Amino acid sequence: MKFKITAQDKKTSARTAILSTPHGTIHTPEFVPVATQASLKSLTPAQLNNQILMINTYHCYLRPGADIIKKLGGLHKFMSWNRPLMTDSGGFQVFSLNNNGNVKITEDKVTFRSHIDQSKHEFTPEKSVAIQEKLGADIIFAFDECTPFDSSEQYIKQSLNRTHSWAERCKKAHKRKDQALFGIVQGGKYKELRKQRAEYISSLHFPGYGIGSIFGNPKIESAEALKWSLEALPYKTPKHFLGIGAVDDLFTGVELGVDLFDCVLPTRLARVGYIFSSECHKKTKWRYRVTKNAFKSDRKPLDKKCSCYTCTNFTRAYLYHLFKANELTAYSLATIHNLAFFNDLMKSMREAIEGDSFTKLKKKWMR
Amino acid sequence: MKFKITAQDKKTSARTAILSTPHGTIHTPEFVPVATQASLKSLTPAQLNNQILMINTYHCYLRPGADIIKKLGGLHKFMSWNRPLMTDSGGFQVFSLNNNGNVKITEDKVTFRSHIDQSKHEFTPEKSVAIQEKLGADIIFAFDECTPFDSSEQYIKQSLNRTHSWAERCKKAHKRKDQALFGIVQGGKYKELRKQRAEYISSLHFPGYGIGSIFGNPKIESAEALKWSLEALPYKTPKHFLGIGAVDDLFTGVELGVDLFDCVLPTRLARVGYIFSSECHKKTKWRYRVTKNAFKSDRKPLDKKCSCYTCTNFTRAYLYHLFKANELTAYSLATIHNLAFFNDLMKSMREAIEGDSFTKLKKKWMR
Repeated sequence: MKFKITAQDKKTSARTAILSTPHGTIHTPEFVPVATQASLKSLTPAQLNNQILMINTYHCYLRPGADIIKKLGGLHKFMSWNRPLMTDSGGFQVFSLNNNGNVKITEDKVTFRSHIDQSKHEFTPEKSVAIQEKLGADIIFAFDECTPFDSSEQYIKQSLNRTHSWAERCKKAHKRKDQALFGIVQGGKYKELRKQRAEYISSLHFPGYGIGSIFGNPKIESAEALKWSLEALPYKTPKHFLGIGAVDDLFTGVELGVDLFDCVLPTRLARVGYIFSSECHKKTKWRYRVTKNAFKSDRKPLDKKCSCYTCTNFTRAYLYHLFKANELTAYSLATIHNLAFFNDLMKSMREAIEGDSFTKLKKKWMR
Repeated sequence: MKFKITAQDKKTSARTAILSTPHGTIHTPEFVPVATQASLKSLTPAQLNNQILMINTYHCYLRPGADIIKKLGGLHKFMSWNRPLMTDSGGFQVFSLNNNGNVKITEDKVTFRSHIDQSKHEFTPEKSVAIQEKLGADIIFAFDECTPFDSSEQYIKQSLNRTHSWAERCKKAHKRKDQALFGIVQGGKYKELRKQRAEYISSLHFPGYGIGSIFGNPKIESAEALKWSLEALPYKTPKHFLGIGAVDDLFTGVELGVDLFDCVLPTRLARVGYIFSSECHKKTKWRYRVTKNAFKSDRKPLDKKCSCYTCTNFTRAYLYHLFKANELTAYSLATIHNLAFFNDLMKSMREAIEGDSFTKLKKKWMR
């Protein structure tokens, strides 16, 4: 993996770069859609106009299983996607989908139950890496404890101590040369802990870094925790802000130097009729719900500035009808548009950084 | 609408033809997929490789409503489909989706309740035509009573008497010159009634004819009722066998001179994992279920002779996984394949008729 910074904003830490992987290059900053179970819900790969996808290790491990995916040639071949892929470590799902007392963490491992059939499983750093090697994504992540952002300082300290060696164990276990293993910065909302952890993870010289456990939280606190994490990481490496996808958070992240983001937001919201639009504003989180009665006979496209397949061929009234009639194609058409919105947004950020107008672009969107 | 017969099989009544409509031509014999609510379930128009689609008048009348579709430019524009379309009369759904005592038939009209909200509605021949004119398909059907195939001779006689004038009322009500109105032959399983009815409907000189109320019945009785209907209809007009789509029924129909068929079979079965395949035989109705454990790690395509997007890019194991994981893309990929199977099947029939080998082709499939 190579990472070449191609432009640096003068006023902020925003930059553009080209990330090269065995399956192609990614122009950053970029938003990475999530294809949880090796499928971007409701779309085929031919309908996707994305540089890279994120797959969830936890889900693929449970179903269909990493051995089956390996036997069938790895994720790229399995899902017929020949562009770059990343897998997460499984940590987030282990901790978030099983928070009803089923998770046990020791210094050695995490024991958890499947959300599908309640069967018992365990993950170690070595096992997470072994699974991700079988899945075969271009970028993989180190396994760690994903602590809630608002955990107490004491709990975060305990967690960091307990999992202190996990990043090193992941690095040691990782053998595949065609994959880049990213280290992860945790540390909750505590400046000293974020800083210490970022410095320690940096000392292990990962080719890239994820910033974890900052989401669904007050925007200012989140931005600070992100800033402390980024400041202590080496400039010339790619940084991935895990689980982030709100429009304002993308601007904040890019401004602070984030290169990659992933989130289920545009795809999950699409499936309940929420449409992102350049015609909306901050007050409505840049989206509206096309299932509202106001759109019943609206002949306008979802977003008049968008040139995606959905916007060039269909009206809001048609989408309204498909959602009301529970037609499966509603999910496809809304997902195609929301992904196009995020593609366009990230492209406009890259162009603004190159044209030295990122701050102006951000101001325009934050009105 | 023009209908030009281009080849006539020497041994049977099978023929090929070109049906010209305002939205393009259809090479027949052809199978017409059903896009019930103005959407082919799970696919966008760009994913469809079909000459023509059938839309259900009953469904579109109830939701979103014919006036909204008209306001938005008619069905073609509403669903972004610029090739030919046909709508049925609504009769089949009125009688089949409301068979719990909610349907009342008089000489003038049918009163029924909506399957969505139980609201009360009525259809007359004039209203069915008016709705279909608003929807704007290229081919529309006359409204009649859709009687169960196994109704008593007395009931069918009563029905035919009661609705005797309906075909004429439809013809009189139909004003749009850019639509072809097809008459329908009913008559249950009774030779004399089929024959009489076909002769009467023929005397009204429709540009094409539907053969109705023959499905889900013993194959031999069905074929006979179809034969009696077809024999009394004018040779040089297109004939549509309503609601038929099983592989053997398609061969029987084409052999007897049917030009068009519609059915939800390939699409509905796709969504529960049934895959049509040239590798299967009559015994299994030319299909298998990809959700069976045998396919868990099967690296073969759904059908090795198929060149559709699904078969050229994905394995049975991937489809198995998508269905087991309830991924929406399962429905799209299986539907793409099943429609390709029917496209290929009909194309092979057309080629066989032109090459004077239809009987041989039928024999090969009926093994």
